[in-house]
Amino acid sequence: MQLDYDSFQPQCKHPFGAVLVKTPVTFSLRVQTSATVRAVKLCIVHDGQWNAEQAVPMTAQAGTYTTTFTPTQTGLYFYYFQVQTATDAIYYGCVDGGAGGPGVQYAQRNQVQMYQLTILASVEHLPRWYREGVAYQIFADRFYNGNPDGHVNAPKPNSFLYGRLSDRPLYIRGPHQEIMRWDFFGGNLKGIEAKIPYLKKLGVTIIYLTPIFQATSNHRYDTGDYFKIDPVLGDLADFDHLVAALHRAGMRLILDGVFNHVGVDSRYFNRSGHYDTVGAAQSRTSRYYNWFTFINYPTEYDSWWGISDLPTVDKENQDYRDFIFAKPGSVIDYWTARGVDGWRLDVADELPDDFIAGIRQALDRYPDKVLIGEVWEDASHKLAYGERRHYLEGGGLQAVMNYPLRRLIIHVLNGTLAPVDWWRELMTLKENYPTSTFNNNFNNIGSHDTPRILTMLQNDRQRLQLAVAMLLTLPGVPCLYYGDEAKMTGGKDPDNRAYFPWANVDQTQQQVVQRWAVWRQNHPWLNTAEFAPFYVGDYGIGYVFWQARQQVLVVINVTTMGQVLKAADLHLAGIPRALATAIQHRLVGQELAGTQVQLIENFT
Amino acid sequence: MQLDYDSFQPQCKHPFGAVLVKTPVTFSLRVQTSATVRAVKLCIVHDGQWNAEQAVPMTAQAGTYTTTFTPTQTGLYFYYFQVQTATDAIYYGCVDGGAGGPGVQYAQRNQVQMYQLTILASVEHLPRWYREGVAYQIFADRFYNGNPDGHVNAPKPNSFLYGRLSDRPLYIRGPHQEIMRWDFFGGNLKGIEAKIPYLKKLGVTIIYLTPIFQATSNHRYDTGDYFKIDPVLGDLADFDHLVAALHRAGMRLILDGVFNHVGVDSRYFNRSGHYDTVGAAQSRTSRYYNWFTFINYPTEYDSWWGISDLPTVDKENQDYRDFIFAKPGSVIDYWTARGVDGWRLDVADELPDDFIAGIRQALDRYPDKVLIGEVWEDASHKLAYGERRHYLEGGGLQAVMNYPLRRLIIHVLNGTLAPVDWWRELMTLKENYPTSTFNNNFNNIGSHDTPRILTMLQNDRQRLQLAVAMLLTLPGVPCLYYGDEAKMTGGKDPDNRAYFPWANVDQTQQQVVQRWAVWRQNHPWLNTAEFAPFYVGDYGIGYVFWQARQQVLVVINVTTMGQVLKAADLHLAGIPRALATAIQHRLVGQELAGTQVQLIENFT
Repeated sequence: MQLDYDSFQPQCKHPFGAVLVKTPVTFSLRVQTSATVRAVKLCIVHDGQWNAEQAVPMTAQAGTYTTTFTPTQTGLYFYYFQVQTATDAIYYGCVDGGAGGPGVQYAQRNQVQMYQLTILASVEHLPRWYREGVAYQIFADRFYNGNPDGHVNAPKPNSFLYGRLSDRPLYIRGPHQEIMRWDFFGGNLKGIEAKIPYLKKLGVTIIYLTPIFQATSNHRYDTGDYFKIDPVLGDLADFDHLVAALHRAGMRLILDGVFNHVGVDSRYFNRSGHYDTVGAAQSRTSRYYNWFTFINYPTEYDSWWGISDLPTVDKENQDYRDFIFAKPGSVIDYWTARGVDGWRLDVADELPDDFIAGIRQALDRYPDKVLIGEVWEDASHKLAYGERRHYLEGGGLQAVMNYPLRRLIIHVLNGTLAPVDWWRELMTLKENYPTSTFNNNFNNIGSHDTPRILTMLQNDRQRLQLAVAMLLTLPGVPCLYYGDEAKMTGGKDPDNRAYFPWANVDQTQQQVVQRWAVWRQNHPWLNTAEFAPFYVGDYGIGYVFWQARQQVLVVINVTTMGQVLKAADLHLAGIPRALATAIQHRLVGQELAGTQVQLIENFT
Repeated sequence: MQLDYDSFQPQCKHPFGAVLVKTPVTFSLRVQTSATVRAVKLCIVHDGQWNAEQAVPMTAQAGTYTTTFTPTQTGLYFYYFQVQTATDAIYYGCVDGGAGGPGVQYAQRNQVQMYQLTILASVEHLPRWYREGVAYQIFADRFYNGNPDGHVNAPKPNSFLYGRLSDRPLYIRGPHQEIMRWDFFGGNLKGIEAKIPYLKKLGVTIIYLTPIFQATSNHRYDTGDYFKIDPVLGDLADFDHLVAALHRAGMRLILDGVFNHVGVDSRYFNRSGHYDTVGAAQSRTSRYYNWFTFINYPTEYDSWWGISDLPTVDKENQDYRDFIFAKPGSVIDYWTARGVDGWRLDVADELPDDFIAGIRQALDRYPDKVLIGEVWEDASHKLAYGERRHYLEGGGLQAVMNYPLRRLIIHVLNGTLAPVDWWRELMTLKENYPTSTFNNNFNNIGSHDTPRILTMLQNDRQRLQLAVAMLLTLPGVPCLYYGDEAKMTGGKDPDNRAYFPWANVDQTQQQVVQRWAVWRQNHPWLNTAEFAPFYVGDYGIGYVFWQARQQVLVVINVTTMGQVLKAADLHLAGIPRALATAIQHRLVGQELAGTQVQLIENFT
């Protein structure tokens, strides 16, 4: 028996990908067999309601069985097909691992891997500055010190400053691997403001800043006071000045919102009594006592990943919700009113959906804001702590940090992911994510939480250029990690957080980044264009954007060997026939140099 | 049988203490017995020549047996007495542990502990500035930063600076406890110069500086270049300026000479190639190759206490000797010619006697210099690596860091050493050391290698005042450790090396130090006066200086309880009768408040 279904193809499933709730979706399975087919069914079940699987009969027409299913609930449906013959039942589901596209037959029901169907409550509309922007992530301590004499603002008690700006970052640990002292280079808000012309010239339009509120550590994910700029970075006047300067330059600012936990030395927990408020660790009568979950007061308490420096806040606590987002003057309110254009929510997996929705509502009182989440996997089906998350189905996050895309870029360039798999996995992201998410995800090829891209690419400078080109030409909002344009290297944290080598910027690399960033800015239509990836034999990948009469074609030979592109190499499934033909005409017979990107515009 | 001998008493042994070679020494043992005494002998043997013990017959007169022995060799002799009766032999030696004074009888020859007799080749004459001076030890990185804006000069690559000057020092260690990065506060030579008025006012006349030559660490005992001022501290001009300013202020400078080992990253070893010379670790053809002892070239080599960062230099190597002291332009020569007034030799135990003598000869080409050694024990009989050292017998060291005296001061004040034992141990030092050493030893109550005095005294501020008074009134040259006058605390290294709290100096303590230091300077005659310690019951100690018509009497109640001094409490053995009587008259019936020092001048 031969069964054919490919969730990526419009003749098999229509419409493609995620749909709004109550949108009819048509499924068509082609069955070729000498046996007598008794029945073919679409078996579909809403996420978690495993006992309420529906078997929808499919109607045959010339060997193709079709049915239309209208989802009534938001969230995820999972589906597969069942073909009943006189003697047997055959199942058809997606390939192992959950990718979409062509599937496989299963002999047993309990072996079947089900396809995912994402159902949205609403379609997100993201602001244009974000959709058409090029972002740049700055780890504030490590970018630039704007004090003319280079002194560090207000060093913290018992902290260390690096002797030289070229020093490699180092955690200062004690005998139990605990951080004994925090280390600072002294980058500050004035320094970011001073570099606005540099960033503007580079093609950057959005700055994403890692946390800037008062904290103990250099990364400031251990908030001490949500309403205070960390004095090492500057003060409120510096912040206001930076925001004004960014906006004057046509740039936007995204802040890091760290709301799952606070620092043990915070105004709220206040274990060491550094703050003048009564903290939860100081007295049960503390205003903040109920924010935390104590197992053994005051020494044992819920903390993030068991790190006692980061007591977890109870996100169900209404007072905390009021404080963060729900009341006027909340953290979100206060800073957004001061000009913040968007927020990136740290460890979104730890935040309940309605907590995120509350932040979103607070944000939506202002025009043109954006809410991004830190999620490391495909956020359309993320299970966190055994619960399905609904980040992207409407009214929650509008984008997530696109680490899956980073993985695809790095692995295909390193030769550890075959072009065909790259294609299938990228198509799966396109299928699973709402279109607005896929087109507006917060893409990166490295962040403060990953080794640097050049290090991931084994210091291969040519591959670095390909990675930058991909970041800046793929769908989604590209976010550069500070210093990658200076060819910074760095393994895992803290090595990836070195100080920007201002005296030693790699001009070639910087120009490559600038060229692609400016190119991206000159192609705002890509954000709403049709997009399809493809692959080229076992050596190349490509993708095409099209809209009205415009096209952009990107082809990359990911190997080091030049190749003359043959017709049989081109796998253009899912691309409209005329466009596919044009791509063939344009590429077949062309020499594709190794480790090289070809950009072809408007070729039909 | 009753035998009486007390090496401290002139009627038992004359002259007292160490003597020049060929000086006749008279020994008298009093024997009271009903048995027939056949013979009494002084058994005396030169250090190490154990098979050549001499038995010198003693002549009886009214129950006292006397003989005179004339030492023919320098170094140490050891002696005891043997009383032969018709039936038996009885031995008399010093008490267990080797202290002088009254001894004990031994039944067996092999149990006898022998008295020490120190014999000198020559009598040392130390310069007056040293003998009458008050010294102050500065750990250069931690004293004061003389740059008006407080910036740190030339921080080293991959080093850390403390965020605040009030931070507690911390070693930054790796998983194997190795130092990963060096930490600096940024004190410098300009800062020392800026504080000359402060030090002068405090009563200081000599500065002893821990190492200042280029090195990797903050302590600089890992010399990188013997001919370069460490750039963190300043440059040669700063050094010359400091020396000139000190001399103008009537002050002197003692440097730390670290000649046993160098830094692994030094011009001489140059493991990492930071220096432009070819180092021993780089090539066997290096000029410096023969300075070192390689076990496995170039990775295994002799190093100080097995610390691979500190390769040991072969002190027998003539080229190294030429470099350090033996040729014009040597390290000693170069810096002494630039105005250094004295040297303190680090780890003197590791330097052969003739190496030290060579340094001394180099130094003696200049007038009025002084050579001090780091020795932790009683240096008169120090055995290092199984060999007796001859530091102080003439032509070598002129003084040592007087850690034994420090121990006596701390323990008697903490109540862990009885006044009688304090007296006996101090008398033993007086007996074993050459007079010039005892009177000119480099005294301290704390250094960069010990916990701070206030910490050793359990933070008892009253006891701290007693310790300071003792340091500044006992024989020897007092050396204050920077910051003890500011009431700095600190446990063992690196806690004892905090930055001087300039904004937070304890005025009371500073005035106490100043008062005693100025008092000491106003009593230069103490340096050549007679001196005798005594003890007062189980609660007090005292000592008296006398010369011509002048006396100084110091009495300290080391307990917290006030005491009315009774005649029976006073143990004044060894003090001339008239003076002892005057002391009794002066003290008996006096109320001695607890934890208090009484200073009485010219009381006869």
